[in-house]
Amino acid sequence: MIGFAPVPPPDQTAEAAARTRQDTLTKPRGALGRLEDLSVWVASCQGQCPPRQFQRARVVVFAGDHGVAGSGVSAYPPEVTAQMVANIEAGGAAINTLAQLAGASVRVADLAVDSEATGAGIGDRVRRGSGDIAVEDALTQEETARAIAAGQRIADDEVDAGADLLIAGDMGIGNTTPAAVLVAALTNTEPVAVVGFGTGIDDNAWSRKTAAVRDALFRARPVLEDPVALLRSCGGADFAAMAGFCAQAAIRRTPLLLDGMAVTAAALVAERLAPGARLWWQAGHRSTEPGHALALRALDLEPILDLRMRLGEGSGAALAVPVLRAAVAALSSMATFTEAGVSGPVTGPADPVT
Amino acid sequence: MIGFAPVPPPDQTAEAAARTRQDTLTKPRGALGRLEDLSVWVASCQGQCPPRQFQRARVVVFAGDHGVAGSGVSAYPPEVTAQMVANIEAGGAAINTLAQLAGASVRVADLAVDSEATGAGIGDRVRRGSGDIAVEDALTQEETARAIAAGQRIADDEVDAGADLLIAGDMGIGNTTPAAVLVAALTNTEPVAVVGFGTGIDDNAWSRKTAAVRDALFRARPVLEDPVALLRSCGGADFAAMAGFCAQAAIRRTPLLLDGMAVTAAALVAERLAPGARLWWQAGHRSTEPGHALALRALDLEPILDLRMRLGEGSGAALAVPVLRAAVAALSSMATFTEAGVSGPVTGPADPVT
Repeated sequence: MIGFAPVPPPDQTAEAAARTRQDTLTKPRGALGRLEDLSVWVASCQGQCPPRQFQRARVVVFAGDHGVAGSGVSAYPPEVTAQMVANIEAGGAAINTLAQLAGASVRVADLAVDSEATGAGIGDRVRRGSGDIAVEDALTQEETARAIAAGQRIADDEVDAGADLLIAGDMGIGNTTPAAVLVAALTNTEPVAVVGFGTGIDDNAWSRKTAAVRDALFRARPVLEDPVALLRSCGGADFAAMAGFCAQAAIRRTPLLLDGMAVTAAALVAERLAPGARLWWQAGHRSTEPGHALALRALDLEPILDLRMRLGEGSGAALAVPVLRAAVAALSSMATFTEAGVSGPVTGPADPVT
Repeated sequence: MIGFAPVPPPDQTAEAAARTRQDTLTKPRGALGRLEDLSVWVASCQGQCPPRQFQRARVVVFAGDHGVAGSGVSAYPPEVTAQMVANIEAGGAAINTLAQLAGASVRVADLAVDSEATGAGIGDRVRRGSGDIAVEDALTQEETARAIAAGQRIADDEVDAGADLLIAGDMGIGNTTPAAVLVAALTNTEPVAVVGFGTGIDDNAWSRKTAAVRDALFRARPVLEDPVALLRSCGGADFAAMAGFCAQAAIRRTPLLLDGMAVTAAALVAERLAPGARLWWQAGHRSTEPGHALALRALDLEPILDLRMRLGEGSGAALAVPVLRAAVAALSSMATFTEAGVSGPVTGPADPVT
């Protein structure tokens, strides 16, 4: 029923060619640091060196409400999810501004917003609000399958339409609570070490949130080894769709930037669903949520930016797109030592020592 | 002879207005992290809220040779400075690619390249190569004054031509050696803690470099409290010009992005020449040079990016420009809660707790 094709590895020939080309460019070997690694990664994803500049970067914001938001785990009331979906569709949210600067367009997928159906992404909706994970499953088995499939389908649609860079984002009041549960479950971490202050809650709300995470984790114990059941039990339709989306991007050989806590929690699940998918991902940034750093470490991903952001929507990942574009441009446009008539190092290649 | 007008502080009214406006935008308070601080900084520099997007961002690459490069302190031969100046003027260097993506143009100022005069920036040249600081003064008193004045004049020219964002860069084989001396002198740090591997030197070259830094520091002892004399003794024409440039940008109320070790070392001197100038600067990135981190700490500047770059040319600062543009765009284009009809937090403003 829920199936993922094997994840192909990025192209090692293009990767090697990109490494070799980097060392011919007019700069000390390794001097562009992380930019060099990112350029090599893009070349390996595209299977060609030099890599192409991204022509169609797409942000998909996965929106959903969560029953647990009724328990005072967020600073904002649940109706803000639907309001912010409308704001994104009207172009007024942070992700609209940041995506525009990044040369990316934005799509909202409404998986489980708890509102009368109105938005453009409504065709993806699985239900109105996921269940309160502190006391019940977020989804039924059938809803879980539909949500994962919706995420896969969205990835397929985008890649078929020409997307060459995908960016996963999230919108949902209360969604750092299920995200914290997923990260705690998959990294075997105590709730207190995973739960953060989300949109800016006070200490009392933090205590309620931590209690909800503890209760949900207790409920999740029998399904810790089953990623689909974990999404059903403690995730939600948006998380299931994000997991399907991240996994399917890899299967479709399309590079993807992860955003913050919610997306990265879903990506942790996706790596269980489709092992090796993480090789097609980069972490756009590290947010202030403690669980985000844990999830990134578990995925062995180093964030590109670290700017104390904690907004979601794909904002941190969108902000990293210019860095990725710069990496591609440097590898494809810089002059080589030979072309520019620049002398090389005095004594053989100068390997980076630091 | 060498004089700097007082540095005006950035505009506190615009700063306060920007902080207030940030809290009306459709995102949790503080959720854009560093982007919010940067947007407030730009507003305070421009003296208006919301700030304008940058219309004319200019990179100035200060080029110069250094006698100490003859002592095997670099992985590259000294002729590479002139070759790289030509490469930058031909558009083949990393800074050309990164500036283009940042929407910035590039100017090279040749302060002391040791070559037959050819390049566009030659009008700024003070001499052919600065002296070997391990054994002699880098400049005469008169050359020091001319180099500082050249940097001031370049800043004035650029601001008069409409530059609303300045980016300081450097090009010069061996220039992390005087940079290390300046940072060690002004932060009272031992040479071994300041000297890095520059363009990628081996351990033997690192030892030679550290010895040169130690010798130059010994020579600098009598002038530690005199920033102009320090530039003369242990800097060079490029460093003196960069110091004049960074200071003058502040005097002309123009925001400036610092790049790596060389620029930041010069900025440390500039802050002595024109106290308060640092309020007009941001640190584009942190390089792998240990002295760079020390200099940033001394200036109380937090780098925007940290991507293990160590190239110079203004490359790390240029890569930070899109982040600065995003900060400006967010503050000027995002919808407010009222405009978008989005509900605010449940219980009063949600202050960032983390």
